[in-house]
Amino acid sequence: MSATDFDIPTLRARRTNKWHKFAPDVLPAWVADMDFGVAPAIAAAMRRLTDNQEYGYAARDGVLAGAFSRRMASRFGWQTDPAHAIGLGDLVQATFSSVMAFSEPGDGILLQLPSYPPFMGAIADTGRRLIPNAMRDDGQRWVLELPATVDPRLRMLIFCHPQNPTGRCYSRAELEQVAAFAIRHDLVVVSDEIHADIIYPGGGHIPLASLSSEIAARTITITSATKSFNIPALRCAVMHFGAPALLQRFLAKMPTRLLGSPSVTGVDATVAAWDDGQAWFEEIMAQLLANRDWLARTIAAELPGVSFRVPEATYLAWLDCRGLELPCSAGQFFLDKARVGLNFGETFGPDYAGFARLNFASPPKVLAEVVGRMVDAVRTR
Amino acid sequence: MSATDFDIPTLRARRTNKWHKFAPDVLPAWVADMDFGVAPAIAAAMRRLTDNQEYGYAARDGVLAGAFSRRMASRFGWQTDPAHAIGLGDLVQATFSSVMAFSEPGDGILLQLPSYPPFMGAIADTGRRLIPNAMRDDGQRWVLELPATVDPRLRMLIFCHPQNPTGRCYSRAELEQVAAFAIRHDLVVVSDEIHADIIYPGGGHIPLASLSSEIAARTITITSATKSFNIPALRCAVMHFGAPALLQRFLAKMPTRLLGSPSVTGVDATVAAWDDGQAWFEEIMAQLLANRDWLARTIAAELPGVSFRVPEATYLAWLDCRGLELPCSAGQFFLDKARVGLNFGETFGPDYAGFARLNFASPPKVLAEVVGRMVDAVRTR
Repeated sequence: MSATDFDIPTLRARRTNKWHKFAPDVLPAWVADMDFGVAPAIAAAMRRLTDNQEYGYAARDGVLAGAFSRRMASRFGWQTDPAHAIGLGDLVQATFSSVMAFSEPGDGILLQLPSYPPFMGAIADTGRRLIPNAMRDDGQRWVLELPATVDPRLRMLIFCHPQNPTGRCYSRAELEQVAAFAIRHDLVVVSDEIHADIIYPGGGHIPLASLSSEIAARTITITSATKSFNIPALRCAVMHFGAPALLQRFLAKMPTRLLGSPSVTGVDATVAAWDDGQAWFEEIMAQLLANRDWLARTIAAELPGVSFRVPEATYLAWLDCRGLELPCSAGQFFLDKARVGLNFGETFGPDYAGFARLNFASPPKVLAEVVGRMVDAVRTR
Repeated sequence: MSATDFDIPTLRARRTNKWHKFAPDVLPAWVADMDFGVAPAIAAAMRRLTDNQEYGYAARDGVLAGAFSRRMASRFGWQTDPAHAIGLGDLVQATFSSVMAFSEPGDGILLQLPSYPPFMGAIADTGRRLIPNAMRDDGQRWVLELPATVDPRLRMLIFCHPQNPTGRCYSRAELEQVAAFAIRHDLVVVSDEIHADIIYPGGGHIPLASLSSEIAARTITITSATKSFNIPALRCAVMHFGAPALLQRFLAKMPTRLLGSPSVTGVDATVAAWDDGQAWFEEIMAQLLANRDWLARTIAAELPGVSFRVPEATYLAWLDCRGLELPCSAGQFFLDKARVGLNFGETFGPDYAGFARLNFASPPKVLAEVVGRMVDAVRTR
């Protein structure tokens, strides 16, 4: 079996949210995990724990932080200090804890829209104010346009890079604008770089904090192997503070024992992924690239009224369905009429009901069935 | 291989804190996990995840809370509402979050001493004040003596039941005193009941919150399968709120997404333990009982100057070594002279340097070697 060859009955048997949120006749293409397996190195690490029944308090001090630093250096040429990295369960925790440590209720937090929904939750649920910063579709791609004036209580920027759901991989020039903006307005930046591995040919990921020590000193970089290595259920993430003073400010407000620590399965799988998973990942990337290009061709040819800017990163397609002039949200239309489960655009911001997010990290025949159903639904409506 | 038959080389090969904190010539008997394996039901659950590479976002809504409620009903006759249970990584998170949600910096929190060290951390690290409540050795056992007068800013009680490290399993009469005290002083109670399964013949665990709806309404019960089923590295715990209003007060202060959620391995192992692990656990309990009784006889016969109150619960022996009149702490003496790694008493409170905590959840031959080394060290000093 190849790394990307799973049939629908096998996938539907998985006890995952992706395959169980919707009715059994719906083909899901929503939440961001992949309809593939895991790297052999991860499977071996999990098997070792299972075989040895090794579930006592795990001796893993510094192991995750060390793997993070090796990975950032080998993959992005970014030198980090493992002593400034904290392991925890997920990036949403990292975002909530950063917001709570570096701002007060009522403070403003800038966020590009459309946005991964939990970032809006981290602002609303903690009593901070979302300062929306809509991205603009320039006809070629989604571009970042930072505001010329800012709220007097603006304290933070939650920055998603590569951007979810638009799939933008920002250039050095764009990142330098972001850094200058954050420095000019004295913002702390949470830089979510969870999709950094998943960049298509022509692009390259540049960690925001790698630009200069000045931006690093105010940046918390949050990442995880869960997206690129397909292990979100194992709950393991890293937050890295770009300067010791930033870490100290965080720790003064946020006891790390409140946040918990990742399970041994999360740590061992992540270390296996980052240190020994690259060959598998390259195979997956080849499939994702083929899927992306097939999707772009097929939508252009067979789904008039739907457009999207071909993502430079991620396995997510942000479909602009406004040309269909639907009587309901795009997500609802494709769920009801195509029996395809996409992410509803309106969950990424109130202005996006005409959009839907499609996850194309599936075996080609599954993706073909998803898109075929969408084409039929549009043709027969 | 029986459930309790592991030799020292096999144990030392485990990548656990227990076997790697000290030098290789030290026999460890400290941190509270067991030198055994796990229940066949847990091994099967882990193997299923490993075989199916099922690490996408897990469909486990309500699964852990349901298993918790079934377990509390079947084991302790306690009816709980799964809708009032929250899953998270560990009990230390549960304690920190409760302290932060139900008290303010500067408030007083009552805690029985000696105490599991992280409870002192949850008070100190959050800027609350520890109001110490020393237990008293009445010659038969450690008894609880609640204070007659209390600090005007006393807001909470962190209650450990069965008590770690003394091994007390409180009677209904004692629990009723605790409940009356909490109600009289309008305290919120965090009741750590993680050792509730591990009760020796003659005793029986009564959940504090099961006494009355009045005490339930102010009690957060925190528990986990990690101690009794030997899976602490999988990081899975439950906090249960005894009334909807208590849960609402908690949620108003503490966004649950800050706390994260347990990994799929933690959830599946816990559910397997609670629903299908009891036969294995009974086998383990028989070994723990034999170990406890052997330890009591052997210490009485061969370690003059060391005494302990035979625990009614837990696999922990709280050794009073003050009769040895050592020139250093008891933990340090046995580490240096016996090459045995115990928990140092002074970490359970400043008055306990003459004590040490011994974990007797080991194969009999390992326990015999631990105690034999201690006997030799005392004889030859």
